[in-house]
Amino acid sequence: MHVTLVHVHVKTEHIQNFIDATEHNHNASILEPGNLRFDLLQSPQDASRFILYEAYTDESEAKKHKATDHYLAWRDTVADWMASPRRGEPQIGLLPKVAK
Amino acid sequence: MHVTLVHVHVKTEHIQNFIDATEHNHNASILEPGNLRFDLLQSPQDASRFILYEAYTDESEAKKHKATDHYLAWRDTVADWMASPRRGEPQIGLLPKVAK
Repeated sequence: MHVTLVHVHVKTEHIQNFIDATEHNHNASILEPGNLRFDLLQSPQDASRFILYEAYTDESEAKKHKATDHYLAWRDTVADWMASPRRGEPQIGLLPKVAK
Repeated sequence: MHVTLVHVHVKTEHIQNFIDATEHNHNASILEPGNLRFDLLQSPQDASRFILYEAYTDESEAKKHKATDHYLAWRDTVADWMASPRRGEPQIGLLPKVAK
C-alpha cells in the first residue's frame, strides 16, 4: 500500500470552497481501481489546515491518479486558494496488507 | 469520523518487534464496531519512524479502543521499544462522510 499525506493550508476565505472542491475530487477518486482511501481531515486547532490521506495499492496507481480529469480539475480549481504550497509526505503502508 | 495520527519513533533494534506487535493490535482493532481504519505507515526515509492512522465513527468509539484488551496489551508490549514518547494528533475526518 502506497500512502501520501498531503498537508494543505487554505486561505481562510476559501475554506468551504476547498472542502466542496475536494469532496468532488474524493467522490471520483474512490472509484479509481487502485484507490484504497481518499480521506479529508481538518485540524481541530486551525480550520484552514487540512490533510489529504491518499492510499493506493502501489505507487504506480498513485501516479495514475495525477493524470485523471478529476485530479487535474481539482488542482486548477484550488490553486488560488492555497495559503502556502501543498506538501506531500509519502509513507510505506504496511497495514492493512493489500494485494494488488 | 474521528481520526488520530499517532507518531511513533521506535528503537532501531525493535523495529520488527514493533511491526509484529502492531499487526496483532491491528487485526483486533479493525474488528471493533466503531473502527474504520487502523493503518500502519512507515517512513521511507527512516525505518524507525511510524504513523498509526486510526479512524473511528466518533470520539467515543476512539476512546473505547483504549479500554480494549488488545490495546492495553500492545501499549505494555511496546513501552520499552519507544525511542521517544508517542504523539497523538487528532483530526476531524470530513470525508468519507460516515454515519454512526
